[in-house]
Amino acid sequence: MAVHKILVDVMLKPEILDPQGQAVANALPNLGYPSPVGLRIGRHVELALEAADADAALEQATKIADTLLANPVIEDYTVRLA
Amino acid sequence: MAVHKILVDVMLKPEILDPQGQAVANALPNLGYPSPVGLRIGRHVELALEAADADAALEQATKIADTLLANPVIEDYTVRLA
Repeated sequence: MAVHKILVDVMLKPEILDPQGQAVANALPNLGYPSPVGLRIGRHVELALEAADADAALEQATKIADTLLANPVIEDYTVRLA
Repeated sequence: MAVHKILVDVMLKPEILDPQGQAVANALPNLGYPSPVGLRIGRHVELALEAADADAALEQATKIADTLLANPVIEDYTVRLA
């Protein structure tokens, strides 16, 4: 059993409005930056799991992402080794 | 001028407590998962910027991350091309 580091990124699905990202996008011109073409904000999760191998760790992280880290109705997630 | 996609990950510095991540870590055993070795939650930002080239886009995204997306006192961030 070794410790594997895994990164999970959770984003709202493209068709779901992102008010947090919109607020930041609207603030940029006021700070002297050009308006961005797109800006969406999600969650970035760094997980360290004890597992037999990397595949087992990825499988477990995917289950965790699906049940606890993301809401699959409105969010997409990606799971990868760090 | 082309549109460049850039990803910014913002995490609390390692020495800063992460109550959100701790809450999720504590919930995992109740859901039948083994306790994780580590679990920290940050923000994942997807930016699309118009810039002359990728280097200019990265430079602009780094400035935006430093002034608006992250609080450099308590957070670290990474900026990379998508």
